[in-house]
Amino acid sequence: MTRYDLIVVGAGPGGYIAAERAGALGKKVLLIEKDHMGGVCTNKGCIPTKSLLNSAKHYLHAKESARFGVHAEGVSFDIREAHAWKTETIETLRSGISFLMKNNKVDVVAGTAQFIDPHHVKVGETEYEGDYLILAMGSSPVVPPIAGATLPHVLTSDGILEMKTLPKKLVIVGGGVIGIEFASFYSMVGVDVTVIEMMPEILPMMDAEFATLMRREMKGVSFNLGCKVIGITEKDVRFTTAKGDEKSVEADTVLLSIGRRANIAGIEPLHLETDRQGIVVDERMKTNIPTIYAIGDVNGRSQLAHSASRMAEVAVSNIFGTTHQRMRYQAVPWAVYGNPEAAGCGLTEQAAAAEGRKILTATTQMRANGRFLAEQGKRAGGLVKVIADAQTHAILGVHMLGTYSSEIIWGASALIEAELRIKDVKELIFPHPSVAELIRDTVFAIDHTL
Amino acid sequence: MTRYDLIVVGAGPGGYIAAERAGALGKKVLLIEKDHMGGVCTNKGCIPTKSLLNSAKHYLHAKESARFGVHAEGVSFDIREAHAWKTETIETLRSGISFLMKNNKVDVVAGTAQFIDPHHVKVGETEYEGDYLILAMGSSPVVPPIAGATLPHVLTSDGILEMKTLPKKLVIVGGGVIGIEFASFYSMVGVDVTVIEMMPEILPMMDAEFATLMRREMKGVSFNLGCKVIGITEKDVRFTTAKGDEKSVEADTVLLSIGRRANIAGIEPLHLETDRQGIVVDERMKTNIPTIYAIGDVNGRSQLAHSASRMAEVAVSNIFGTTHQRMRYQAVPWAVYGNPEAAGCGLTEQAAAAEGRKILTATTQMRANGRFLAEQGKRAGGLVKVIADAQTHAILGVHMLGTYSSEIIWGASALIEAELRIKDVKELIFPHPSVAELIRDTVFAIDHTL
Repeated sequence: MTRYDLIVVGAGPGGYIAAERAGALGKKVLLIEKDHMGGVCTNKGCIPTKSLLNSAKHYLHAKESARFGVHAEGVSFDIREAHAWKTETIETLRSGISFLMKNNKVDVVAGTAQFIDPHHVKVGETEYEGDYLILAMGSSPVVPPIAGATLPHVLTSDGILEMKTLPKKLVIVGGGVIGIEFASFYSMVGVDVTVIEMMPEILPMMDAEFATLMRREMKGVSFNLGCKVIGITEKDVRFTTAKGDEKSVEADTVLLSIGRRANIAGIEPLHLETDRQGIVVDERMKTNIPTIYAIGDVNGRSQLAHSASRMAEVAVSNIFGTTHQRMRYQAVPWAVYGNPEAAGCGLTEQAAAAEGRKILTATTQMRANGRFLAEQGKRAGGLVKVIADAQTHAILGVHMLGTYSSEIIWGASALIEAELRIKDVKELIFPHPSVAELIRDTVFAIDHTL
Repeated sequence: MTRYDLIVVGAGPGGYIAAERAGALGKKVLLIEKDHMGGVCTNKGCIPTKSLLNSAKHYLHAKESARFGVHAEGVSFDIREAHAWKTETIETLRSGISFLMKNNKVDVVAGTAQFIDPHHVKVGETEYEGDYLILAMGSSPVVPPIAGATLPHVLTSDGILEMKTLPKKLVIVGGGVIGIEFASFYSMVGVDVTVIEMMPEILPMMDAEFATLMRREMKGVSFNLGCKVIGITEKDVRFTTAKGDEKSVEADTVLLSIGRRANIAGIEPLHLETDRQGIVVDERMKTNIPTIYAIGDVNGRSQLAHSASRMAEVAVSNIFGTTHQRMRYQAVPWAVYGNPEAAGCGLTEQAAAAEGRKILTATTQMRANGRFLAEQGKRAGGLVKVIADAQTHAILGVHMLGTYSSEIIWGASALIEAELRIKDVKELIFPHPSVAELIRDTVFAIDHTL
């Protein structure tokens, strides 16, 4: 039986990073993956959606740039070609990850891990022994117990990414990040899209004001908020409104995007503590069994690819490293890659109010910004909000809606983690013209003194 | 005679920010501008070029997106419409600045300032008195003493921005930021472009490796490096090569972009010390006359719009503020908004070598990044380099070539100013997928320990 310092189960952005980092430290590492390298993120999530959204953005640019002096005729979108480009991207990334594993001397085994006990895992007939175990099995889309939810035209994000034709009428059940990104993509390429969301607003992690503007900017999409789906047929989706009325909307394709659930089937032999989110872990990603760590969606503490990768590093640092890091959640950025883009990091105004925390805040319009105006025009909507502690003036949150948000937001993470204050951000120099400058302008809007 | 707490001369990104900040502090401020609000940046520099580059980017997207599944026929570019959009952008920004001045109770006078003495300025027949003077008159393009430099088809950036037709053969003399942005724009829209640069490489502030890749990625442009222009005729531009050979290249339009010189005509009555860069200032932007400050291109210490704005705040903080700030140059970001984009902040490897400074550094390829791959493909070139102090491990420089660089780079300013070290950046969470993540990956490439 081959013995390893570490066995990692699942090769998504949690698992492969854990394997890479431990391998780089000279440890003998086994990585087990039942499907493709890269997990949901690379194969069925972050990457394919961004590839399709990029195609849709280029389609819009070809179709709607007359104001910029660009004219084109007969602009068409070929969903099969967009999928082919997407597939090429995915395959390149997959082989990149395989190369990374090789480079860090990680053994990779294809197959389903069968847990025997905290130190033994079987794949097929072969048993492996490990001093430590990192569980990174990810999550799967939740299919709600609604009549018609298993009809063939009712898909989750996994299924819709395989669909090589465009729907005519798409209904999306669930207005979270996944639902909104697909709504953006399909509406950009001309599909009639309806979103049905049970909560009073889409994108619950987002500042409420921003979510409202986001909906308003997604002009091709109909939103039904506070509505509960009660049944799906071959032809339509039925739902009750907030007022209790029953309504229906036609659909030839339905996307269910109401959430994802931790993949914890088969972990019973490990005797791990679990809760509604998944495997219970402490701030070092350690489970109740001291040699077992759980990272990413399987612990459900922050269902984001980059959280999973960071948790991987936290786990490896505690097992093999010198730094014994802890996971910090207060500056985890998120992004919605729709049209428009949105991103945020840190505290929202609503969360501050719920905590009774005293804050200073200001919001600015993106249309006051030179680059935004030059590229989007004065009728485009966009917002930036900054939140700071009322006493210390430390930056606690940055929220953005508008172009480039997803690439700008990382710096907010740096501001928050470095505990920079209002006066420190005022002394930072931002490049002009950039949309990013709005963060600085918003900080000055909180306090203009020098 | 009206008395002011502060008279600001020049309403560019230095002057109008100085007026705004001082006005916001409740000071009585006069702003004098001889041309349009916003100065060169808004009217003849940053903004119009970014507007045109955005048009060109949309043109490329319409023309070259078949790989993404986007097809269009008869794609054409109308330079007049692109200029009209540009003009609308500029006018919106100008009125935004006027509104800002009104909002901060700044008096604005149109006309040329005539300096009488350190406390008196005339505009036309009216004389104004000021306790303090902030000089922000900017700079103008240098026209070199070359035969033919004053021919009508030989333009500076001011002139070429007024040109409402596309050249057939454009020769650009000078491969700095301005030259390269125009080269990008014109080559994207199909013009035959040649750049002639006297130095051995373009973009001297850029890491040498990046500048070389930048040239390689600008496929439609011919570069002649180490070449000196000796004469311009109606038909061509003649130059000597590094080896001393004489050559010529055809041109119906020539852009001179060899540099800009401080606008210091008429300052004699102020008895200010000047040097080759412009008006001499200390780190607080103070001149040799204690009540006169000089900011932006007129002091020539950092010819960037955002440097000018920051200098404005430094000056105002020292005159009227409580913080008495100093200008710091070590984390001033810059960006080149070409195709591809490039940006940087802080120390380059070449500068570190010149100073004999011991550094740690690593470079990563953008094509290893998920978003870059999804949007640009595996054959596109892009690089990220991070430079850290060998002893303290503090981040000293970040350099980028590739899409979104201009919007990502602000965070590098935060890293450098907050004196974050390699280990701190490793603990920051970057959103996935984003091109920005490459900064983190590059930091791990310097040191992979945990």
